[in-house]
Amino acid sequence: MPLPLRATIWNEFLHEQTNEIVRAVYPDGIHAVIAEGLHQCLGDAVAVRTATLAEPEHGLSEAVLDQTDVLVWWGHIAHDRVEDVVVERVHRRVIEGMGLVVLHSGHGSKIFIKLMGTGCMIRWREAGERERLWIVNPGHPIVEGFEDEYFELPHEEMYGEMFDIPQPDELILISWFEGGEVFRSCCTFRRGKGKILYFRPGHETYPTYYDQNVRRVLANGVQWAAPTGSRFFGAARNIRDPLSAPVPRHS
Amino acid sequence: MPLPLRATIWNEFLHEQTNEIVRAVYPDGIHAVIAEGLHQCLGDAVAVRTATLAEPEHGLSEAVLDQTDVLVWWGHIAHDRVEDVVVERVHRRVIEGMGLVVLHSGHGSKIFIKLMGTGCMIRWREAGERERLWIVNPGHPIVEGFEDEYFELPHEEMYGEMFDIPQPDELILISWFEGGEVFRSCCTFRRGKGKILYFRPGHETYPTYYDQNVRRVLANGVQWAAPTGSRFFGAARNIRDPLSAPVPRHS
Amino acid sequence: MPLPLRATIWNEFLHEQTNEIVRAVYPDGIHAVIAEGLHQCLGDAVAVRTATLAEPEHGLSEAVLDQTDVLVWWGHIAHDRVEDVVVERVHRRVIEGMGLVVLHSGHGSKIFIKLMGTGCMIRWREAGERERLWIVNPGHPIVEGFEDEYFELPHEEMYGEMFDIPQPDELILISWFEGGEVFRSCCTFRRGKGKILYFRPGHETYPTYYDQNVRRVLANGVQWAAPTGSRFFGAARNIRDPLSAPVPRHS
Amino acid sequence: MPLPLRATIWNEFLHEQTNEIVRAVYPDGIHAVIAEGLHQCLGDAVAVRTATLAEPEHGLSEAVLDQTDVLVWWGHIAHDRVEDVVVERVHRRVIEGMGLVVLHSGHGSKIFIKLMGTGCMIRWREAGERERLWIVNPGHPIVEGFEDEYFELPHEEMYGEMFDIPQPDELILISWFEGGEVFRSCCTFRRGKGKILYFRPGHETYPTYYDQNVRRVLANGVQWAAPTGSRFFGAARNIRDPLSAPVPRHS
Repeated sequence: MPLPLRATIWNEFLHEQTNEIVRAVYPDGIHAVIAEGLHQCLGDAVAVRTATLAEPEHGLSEAVLDQTDVLVWWGHIAHDRVEDVVVERVHRRVIEGMGLVVLHSGHGSKIFIKLMGTGCMIRWREAGERERLWIVNPGHPIVEGFEDEYFELPHEEMYGEMFDIPQPDELILISWFEGGEVFRSCCTFRRGKGKILYFRPGHETYPTYYDQNVRRVLANGVQWAAPTGSRFFGAARNIRDPLSAPVPRHS
Repeated sequence: MPLPLRATIWNEFLHEQTNEIVRAVYPDGIHAVIAEGLHQCLGDAVAVRTATLAEPEHGLSEAVLDQTDVLVWWGHIAHDRVEDVVVERVHRRVIEGMGLVVLHSGHGSKIFIKLMGTGCMIRWREAGERERLWIVNPGHPIVEGFEDEYFELPHEEMYGEMFDIPQPDELILISWFEGGEVFRSCCTFRRGKGKILYFRPGHETYPTYYDQNVRRVLANGVQWAAPTGSRFFGAARNIRDPLSAPVPRHS
Repeated sequence: MPLPLRATIWNEFLHEQTNEIVRAVYPDGIHAVIAEGLHQCLGDAVAVRTATLAEPEHGLSEAVLDQTDVLVWWGHIAHDRVEDVVVERVHRRVIEGMGLVVLHSGHGSKIFIKLMGTGCMIRWREAGERERLWIVNPGHPIVEGFEDEYFELPHEEMYGEMFDIPQPDELILISWFEGGEVFRSCCTFRRGKGKILYFRPGHETYPTYYDQNVRRVLANGVQWAAPTGSRFFGAARNIRDPLSAPVPRHS
Repeated sequence: MPLPLRATIWNEFLHEQTNEIVRAVYPDGIHAVIAEGLHQCLGDAVAVRTATLAEPEHGLSEAVLDQTDVLVWWGHIAHDRVEDVVVERVHRRVIEGMGLVVLHSGHGSKIFIKLMGTGCMIRWREAGERERLWIVNPGHPIVEGFEDEYFELPHEEMYGEMFDIPQPDELILISWFEGGEVFRSCCTFRRGKGKILYFRPGHETYPTYYDQNVRRVLANGVQWAAPTGSRFFGAARNIRDPLSAPVPRHS
C-alpha cells in the first residue's frame, strides 16, 4: 500500500477568534474545514495536520516540514507577523520539492511574494457577488472529475485583474464576477523542484471551503503538488552552493 | 527613413454584400475599415493593401506575399472555400517569418487551425451584450498607450471558453461578458519564425473596427507581428528539408 | 485495485525487416522492446498492445483506440504511407484526451506535424556519437527516480537545433552531443485535453530502448500522459461543433 | 526624431582594480566596454551612463533611475555588498516597467534572485573552453541580424544546468560547452511591467564584451527590454496598495 500523502494546513486563525460572522461559518477555524474536505475526498490516501500563526515557529518547525509533502496556506491580516526565519525555511523546502497551495488572500503572504518575485497585488470588492469559474485547461489533473464547463460560488469576495504575478506555467480556471471583473483563479508555477498552486476562492465570511467543487480542486491540487522528480536537487546545500565537482573533460 | 511596414488585410467579404445590416456598418467591407484604422494610427509607417476571397488565388499570390510583412485575416462563413494551396502558401510564409493577425471568427479558419494543431472551437452567443476587455499583461507592446485597466465594447457577440487552443505564449487581454462568460481575447503564439496574434472582437454586425481602442490594439499588433530575428531560417527548403551540411566534428 | 494503464505501441516496423544491423538489435521489432521496457518498469500497472504500419488501418482502428489511454509512436521512412484517415482519427483522440508519446524520428510524422502546426524539422548527423541528456526540470514526474543530473547514451544519432516546434509547455531534458550540438530532447505540449511528450533518443541501429534510463523516461512519460481532467470536452462533437446551449443570461 | 533609449550600465568594478589579467582585458572596467558596444551598434539611438558599486547609493539613486529605461547588471564577488535599499528600489522600478539585462555572474545577484524567487544557482568550471550558442527562437528580436544558426566564443567560463530559475517566458539561446555541459544562456522573463533578459557570457578574464555577436545580442536586448505597454500600472502605489476604487456594479 502506498504511503499516504502528508498535507499540512496552515491557517492564520485570527478572524475566527475575533469576528462573529467568521466564527459562525468556521467555528473550529478555516484549517479544520479544509482538513475535513481533504479527508472527505481522499480518505486514507492523505494524512493531514494543521498549524497556526500562534504556535511556536507558527507550527512550522523543521521537524514538521520534514513530515510535510504539501503545505496549504491561508493568511490575510497578519502576513507581516509571519517571521522571516519561517518564510526562509518554507521557501527552501519548496525549492527542494515540497508542494505549496496558496489560497485566496494568501496572494499577499511573504512566502508567495518571495516565490513570485512580483508585488502579487490585485483589485478587490467585498460585495458577496456571484463568481463563476470557467475551466480553460480541461485536461489538467487539477480539474479531474469535473462534469461541467464551469462551477459557481453564489457569494464570494471579488478579486480582479491586474493580478501582479509572473506568467503562470499553467492557467486552469478563469473567474467571472457579476460586478464586471475577471481573474486568473487557478494557476500553477514551478520554483526549483517545488510545485505551487494558487487557488483564489475562500473569503472568510462565506462557507466556500464546504463547497464540493472547491473541495475537489483542493484535493486534486494537493495530489498534483506532491513531490516528484529526480533526487539530486534535494539537499539544501545544492540551493546555496553550486556543485563543486565538475564533469571531467572528455578529451 | 525606415521603410513602411507592409500589411495585407484579407477579408472574406461576403456578409457585406448579402446582409443589409452588415452593409450599413461596413459599406466598403470590413477590410476597408481595418485599413483605415491602421492608417489613422500609424500614418506613413504602414503601407496597406487588401485582398478578398473572390480574387484569383484569393488575392494572396506569391507576389503579394513577397510584399507582405504582416497578414491580417477576417473570415467567417466561407472558411471551407479558401483553397488548400493558398493555406499551404500562407502557412509556409508564417513559418518563414511573416506575421499573422487573426481576427474574431477567423479562429475557425483553415490557416489558424493548421498553425494551432487543435480544434480552435469556442462557445458563442449573439446577443449584442457588453464586453469588457481586461489587461493582464500591462507591459506588452500590444497595449502600448492604453491609459486604463480595461476597455469596453457596448455591443458584441459573446465568445466563451473553453477556447480550444494550445496554451498561448502570452496572454494579454481577458474578456468579461455581461451574460456570464470569459474569454482569452488577445493572445500570441510563435510558429517557426512567425509571430501570430489572435484578437477576438469584430462581429460583422457591430461597428467594432471603428472603435479607437480596437484600432490601437490592431496597430500595435501589426507592429509587434512584423518579421524580426535571424536570417538562416528564411528559405522554404529549410522547412521541408533539414540542413544537409553537418557541423564538423571538433576532432 | 486501479485498472492498468492501457498503452499501445505503434511502430512502422520496416527497418527491422530489411536492414541486418537493425534486425540484430531489434529482432522482434522496436515495438517489442519498448513494450518489454514498460512491463519491466510498470509491471501489472500497464497493459500493452502493439500496432504496426502493415496491419489493416495500421492497427489503429476505432476499436483499438477505444482501448488506448496512451499511444507511443515510432516512425521514420514511411511517414507518407500513414493514411490520412488514421492521422485524423488519432488527432481527434488526442484532442479528446488520449496521451501521445512521440519518439525520435517521429518528429517528422504526420500526426506530430499536425498537432504542432510547424515544420518540426531538425539538423542531424549519424556518427554514433555520445549524447548526454541534462535534466533542466528536476521536479517533473517524467524524471521521477533519477539519481543524477544527467544520463548518457554512448552512441546515438545526433539531432540538433533549430528544432522547428512551438515553444514547449515544459522543457525537461536538453541533450549535449559530442560533435557540437544541443537539442531539446524531452518536452511536453497540451493540445485539447491530450498530453503530448516528445522524447528524442531511439535511432534504430543502436540498442537505445534497452537502456535503463531511457526505459524509465518512457515509463514515467506514459504515466504522465494518461488521460486526466474534466469530462465535458470528451465527445468528438465538441471539437467540431461548439456547444449549442448558451448559458442563460443572469438578468 | 524619437528620443534615445537611456541605458545605465552597472558594474561591480572590483576585479578590474585588483587582478592584473582582468585589468589587461578591461582597463577602464567592463562597464566601459559594454557602453562602447552599445554605442557601436546603436549610435545616437542610445544614451548610456554607467554606475558602480563604490559610488554613493551604488550610483543608482532615484534620480538616476528616473533617467533609466534599461539597467544592465554585471556583478560577481560582491553581491552581498549591494545594499538592500538599492535592491528594493531597482526591484520596484522593474515592476513598474524598467528593463533589466542581467549578465553572466549576475545570476547570483540579489536583484535577480529577488525577481526570480528561486536560488538561481548553476554548475561552473573555469577552463577557458569553447562555448557554442545555438539559436532556438530564430524569430525573436534579440537575434535580429544574425546570419547563422549559432555563434561561438573560443574561450569562456563554463556554466552548466541545472540553472535554478523559473521556466523562462522565452528561451532564445542554448549553449554547448566543450567539456560536456549545456546551459539556457539567453532567456526572458516578465515581472510586473518590466522585461528581464538573462544573458550568460561575460567572464571577466576573457574579452567577451568585445565580441561582435555578444555586442549585437546586448544591443538587441537593450532595445527589447525598453519600457512598453499601458500606463495605469506605472505608479509605485499600485504595487504596494491595490486600487481602492471598485468598478461600479452594472445592475
